[in-house]
Amino acid sequence: MKASQFLISTLKEAPTDAEVVSHKLMMRAGMIKKLGAGIYNYMPMGLRVIRKVEAIVREEMNRAGAVELTMPLIQPAELWQETGRFDKMGPELLRIKDRHERDYVVQPTSEEVVTDIARQEIKSYKQLPKNLYQIQTKFRDERRPRFGLMRGREFIMKDAYSFDRDQVSAKASYQVMAKAYRRIFDRFGLTYRAVAADSGAIGGDLSEEFQVIAATGEDAIVYCPTSDYAANMEKAEALAPVAPRASAQAAMEKVATPGKSTCEDVAALLGVALNTTVKSLVLATDEKDEHGVVKKTQVWLLLLRGDHDMNEVKVGKLPGLAEFRFATVGEIEEHFGCKPGYLGPIGLKQPLKIVADRDVTVMADWICGANEEGFHIRGVNWGRDLPEPDMVADLRNVVEGDASPDGKGVLAIERGIEVGHVFYLGTKYSKAMNATFLDVNGKPQFMEMGCYGIGITRLPAAAIEQNHDDKGIIWPDALAPFTVVLCPINPDRFPDVKAAADKLYEELLSAGVDVILDDRNERPGAMFADWELIGVPHRVNIGDRGLKEGVVEYQHRRESAATSVPVAEIASLLLGRLKA
Amino acid sequence: MKASQFLISTLKEAPTDAEVVSHKLMMRAGMIKKLGAGIYNYMPMGLRVIRKVEAIVREEMNRAGAVELTMPLIQPAELWQETGRFDKMGPELLRIKDRHERDYVVQPTSEEVVTDIARQEIKSYKQLPKNLYQIQTKFRDERRPRFGLMRGREFIMKDAYSFDRDQVSAKASYQVMAKAYRRIFDRFGLTYRAVAADSGAIGGDLSEEFQVIAATGEDAIVYCPTSDYAANMEKAEALAPVAPRASAQAAMEKVATPGKSTCEDVAALLGVALNTTVKSLVLATDEKDEHGVVKKTQVWLLLLRGDHDMNEVKVGKLPGLAEFRFATVGEIEEHFGCKPGYLGPIGLKQPLKIVADRDVTVMADWICGANEEGFHIRGVNWGRDLPEPDMVADLRNVVEGDASPDGKGVLAIERGIEVGHVFYLGTKYSKAMNATFLDVNGKPQFMEMGCYGIGITRLPAAAIEQNHDDKGIIWPDALAPFTVVLCPINPDRFPDVKAAADKLYEELLSAGVDVILDDRNERPGAMFADWELIGVPHRVNIGDRGLKEGVVEYQHRRESAATSVPVAEIASLLLGRLKA
Repeated sequence: MKASQFLISTLKEAPTDAEVVSHKLMMRAGMIKKLGAGIYNYMPMGLRVIRKVEAIVREEMNRAGAVELTMPLIQPAELWQETGRFDKMGPELLRIKDRHERDYVVQPTSEEVVTDIARQEIKSYKQLPKNLYQIQTKFRDERRPRFGLMRGREFIMKDAYSFDRDQVSAKASYQVMAKAYRRIFDRFGLTYRAVAADSGAIGGDLSEEFQVIAATGEDAIVYCPTSDYAANMEKAEALAPVAPRASAQAAMEKVATPGKSTCEDVAALLGVALNTTVKSLVLATDEKDEHGVVKKTQVWLLLLRGDHDMNEVKVGKLPGLAEFRFATVGEIEEHFGCKPGYLGPIGLKQPLKIVADRDVTVMADWICGANEEGFHIRGVNWGRDLPEPDMVADLRNVVEGDASPDGKGVLAIERGIEVGHVFYLGTKYSKAMNATFLDVNGKPQFMEMGCYGIGITRLPAAAIEQNHDDKGIIWPDALAPFTVVLCPINPDRFPDVKAAADKLYEELLSAGVDVILDDRNERPGAMFADWELIGVPHRVNIGDRGLKEGVVEYQHRRESAATSVPVAEIASLLLGRLKA
Repeated sequence: MKASQFLISTLKEAPTDAEVVSHKLMMRAGMIKKLGAGIYNYMPMGLRVIRKVEAIVREEMNRAGAVELTMPLIQPAELWQETGRFDKMGPELLRIKDRHERDYVVQPTSEEVVTDIARQEIKSYKQLPKNLYQIQTKFRDERRPRFGLMRGREFIMKDAYSFDRDQVSAKASYQVMAKAYRRIFDRFGLTYRAVAADSGAIGGDLSEEFQVIAATGEDAIVYCPTSDYAANMEKAEALAPVAPRASAQAAMEKVATPGKSTCEDVAALLGVALNTTVKSLVLATDEKDEHGVVKKTQVWLLLLRGDHDMNEVKVGKLPGLAEFRFATVGEIEEHFGCKPGYLGPIGLKQPLKIVADRDVTVMADWICGANEEGFHIRGVNWGRDLPEPDMVADLRNVVEGDASPDGKGVLAIERGIEVGHVFYLGTKYSKAMNATFLDVNGKPQFMEMGCYGIGITRLPAAAIEQNHDDKGIIWPDALAPFTVVLCPINPDRFPDVKAAADKLYEELLSAGVDVILDDRNERPGAMFADWELIGVPHRVNIGDRGLKEGVVEYQHRRESAATSVPVAEIASLLLGRLKA
């Protein structure tokens, strides 16, 4: 490609609504152009990156035996009503009406349509397993789209769906995808982790997120540096402490803590460590009749160490707490006789259920609220001052230094951007849509399903969050819009420069290199700044002075200076680097 | 690809709503699957064809210097309001609202968005010309979607838009596209014609349709077998007759023609040729004030030879007739004193304007209605019986045997399916959206535009209309989902058959052939029927009996019988045929 034939439009300044670095750099490098909130034109430079992502994903999906099809963007509501998602999903699901006032949705994913295809096409166990995928535009009407391609409304996703005859086979299909995803992310040239994720109501361990590591990532990733354990924060288990409960040393006493309503403030006031305090969180669950009217409400007191945070996913999995909510101030005052800020498990007005985090149960001489405004109690001890809790469980987010659940070290935490997800679905959709096949005995069975996504347009943004500097983007070779840029210096003044650049361009083109020749006659400074912003990994500067000595300059985007290379060797140097 | 890994689902019968052969065959071959009215899943077999169309189009567009980008499917209404199309377009434009009740459209094309990009990105004449294109899903909410992919609601289109500094450059850009389109359609391996089309209000000759020739085509195509003239019916000119008007021979006389209200019936009753009759068509045009209230109505009488049909596009281009409508029965009775069926230009009650087709002005002794129910007049002659008409023009569709407008023969007519269109737009959109650039003198000028479409998903349907037989589809190599199918006969019983098929499969795969191995263990009859229906052009049958003699069977989809080919030669035979 010659730059003059292409559309290159870099900007000095990013628009003010661009908050994250990938959004700023994609806008400045002219890769995307905003058309509306969360809706972007994929400009020629950006589309080249997206197409490279697509090509790698397609190649590896095919290699893994998946079959590509395309499901419509605009889908009749009927199938979505069959699974109940037409009504259950929030306004993220864009619902539209056609000229005949019939209901449609713009696809956010395609479980319904693919299950409809499977129930029509797959009659016998002999046709299983099957994995059907598409690389297709999606729309989610996010309330607050932002961060460019990171959280857009219109985006491209690869979504695959596996169909199997039983759980054993479904798990094998899941593993095939998990392995293909590793190949895909390896090929992208990004640093990533496959982390165990919560698999929701279905249970089991068959849910992994693929997270591109970046300091700016939205998600916290938990991992063990001395083993291969990795999970997201929702999933990572805080093991029960190994040490037994210490014995009581102090007497229980009420202390005045006026205006100190947080564990941090109380610990500071009393001059003790935060991990000697216990925080009280009050939840409620409602038992409803068939009309949805609340018959009975149960209030729960959760006790966590002052330096720990509650993990809502873990709490939601405890018996009786699946549909918990936070208690109202009224409910709190009724049970504690006190406003929030000074609550504790001692001296309750009304009975409630107490759930203690595992770490709280081994504490001795701890501090909690006195159920009286402006007062706490210290020297509290289990058994002596209050009965053992009704339930003990893992209620909290892990923290750095916690023991790794695999027993092979301690946990560390880093940030990541989720770009892929593999998920075992079970029979959720096949049951809802009666998608059956005839098994070896001729009996109808529900298909076992899995679903597997990759955010095709999100991936370039994640790659940039991981790979950039103050000059711009630094693409890995596999994702670069062009892998090599040739920068002739003043070719209009020096015919030898133009000739040498043209010759190298043709040579690289015929060797299959994705090369761009900058023939725009820009000044060198502006030209170099453009390509550093755009992030092409390999650059060759061709100048008259160098040519007189038989050399050109080579510079990798990660290097701070250029290296002189004999003209005769530059092509083979580039080809060698691109192959590596 | 192995058939067992793919999704093959052929049907014995087409669904009852499939009317045309391409729709029936695509459904039966499992290429598409209906999801809703005019909305289809592109199944794996069909998607392979679509991807081949896309790849050829993309390659040739890039070769022609066009630059690919992608514009969003869901576009904010603002730009569409800027050009007025948000209000002017009919319900084909699907208008939707997001969660914030803001207006959007689902793109049917993208003139507005691409012009918005151009006015932001293109500042100077130095950046011109530019041609931007996308291969992207479109939606048109057709009132009556039908014929499968031929007239769907959701479809894929390649739409390109050129931007130029002046008309000369714009016309050159148009010609580059017209040439690229010829390369594209040549590569598809289809019989097609590029036909001159009406360029609407803009004038000039810069509008061509690319029509795939098929007896079932919706459009009539006019061409000259002895020259390269070709046009669509709207555009093809009926030249003025060379012979002068004959002299009057007969006296004018009224004849009773009770119940004979058509030229055909009158000619039959009187025993004369249809081309001695003249039909009267009554039009009206309304002059309106600034509030759209009709101030004055002009009635027009159009005279055409009885065997000719009116061409509405041609009539709409005549002075004063741009916004014609057909006259009401009331208007007709007021001017003719008679109901339709017996109208003529003699003895009018009210003055009106008479427009005669060129062919009518050279007639003598002709027959027309007497403006009296049940009566016609014969022996009518210009000058003697009525004054010369107010206007003479080409009002009619050409017919076979008419002189070719290029003077190089006579016209023939065939049917076609429009799959591409190249069109010079001028400054229609750049003016409406104020898309200017600075010319060499630093003055702002409107960009000259062109637009260029190819119906990516319509093309396979057109290819099938042209290439099929009673067994199924016959794909040209370039569009085939697979170019070669290997059919081992009873491989489960004959290990040598399986081994030979596997070997040939690997050999062809590594030679880059798009081959599918049918390893489904189907009976030979069913297997052959499937591949004849699907339309794979080259088939190799591998059977135990043949292998014992060292041969396999080769059959092209167009051949009625297979040929024996030595096993050692089959691969090179296939490679030779595929290259040809």
